[in-house]
Amino acid sequence: MAVADPIPAEYADLLERPTFAHVATVGPDGEPQNNPVWFDWDGERISFSQTTGRQKVRNVQREPRVALSIIDPDNPYRYLEVRGVVERIDPDPDKAFIDKMAKKYLGVDAYPWGQPGDERVVVVVRPEHTTKMG
Amino acid sequence: MAVADPIPAEYADLLERPTFAHVATVGPDGEPQNNPVWFDWDGERISFSQTTGRQKVRNVQREPRVALSIIDPDNPYRYLEVRGVVERIDPDPDKAFIDKMAKKYLGVDAYPWGQPGDERVVVVVRPEHTTKMG
Repeated sequence: MAVADPIPAEYADLLERPTFAHVATVGPDGEPQNNPVWFDWDGERISFSQTTGRQKVRNVQREPRVALSIIDPDNPYRYLEVRGVVERIDPDPDKAFIDKMAKKYLGVDAYPWGQPGDERVVVVVRPEHTTKMG
Repeated sequence: MAVADPIPAEYADLLERPTFAHVATVGPDGEPQNNPVWFDWDGERISFSQTTGRQKVRNVQREPRVALSIIDPDNPYRYLEVRGVVERIDPDPDKAFIDKMAKKYLGVDAYPWGQPGDERVVVVVRPEHTTKMG
């Protein structure tokens, strides 16, 4: 059941600060996959960058439901799980999004770890439900 | 393809130290679930405690494949994903396992956050495959 703003206000800081979201997706044979990502939160959507070759992108094209697990780096017993659906996958041809993430997480203007030929997309998640602790 | 020891030796410290594993499971409708847990690593199996009422226990009884995402708390750009299968679910009637975890993570002899009537089990995961970064 989607609601307009399912993120509890008292946990919004976990999305605003440079925390890591462990993103679980479901693979082609129904098996889970899980890894940490940088992400953006605009108050309505959680977005993260991926290179187009990654399994995670193919996973969410097939099965858009995802689950993000986020710990407060200052208190690991305070955490938020966000379940949602991938609403769209946008291109990032000029790397504007990954550079914005480099600013948020590294404090630099340009993403320093790009490889020649990398093609990037932005995976945009609409939160639908949360569970929380702490 | 299961192998005897799929954990890279240079990442074993992430399993030995009191890090948190974000455990992804798959729910009844094929959707992912994801949350952090304490865990034990005996050199062959990763084990974590759950109360029997938790959705996660029902999930792994139905779909034993799981994916654990673990960040180095001292360097978030060093991480390990462990994919594996739940090999068995053991009872923990005297709370020996959860107390052992309280020792590892909190440095205390007895788990301090138990609730009256809590029934606990130990979910035992056999690692099959890893991905890593850093």
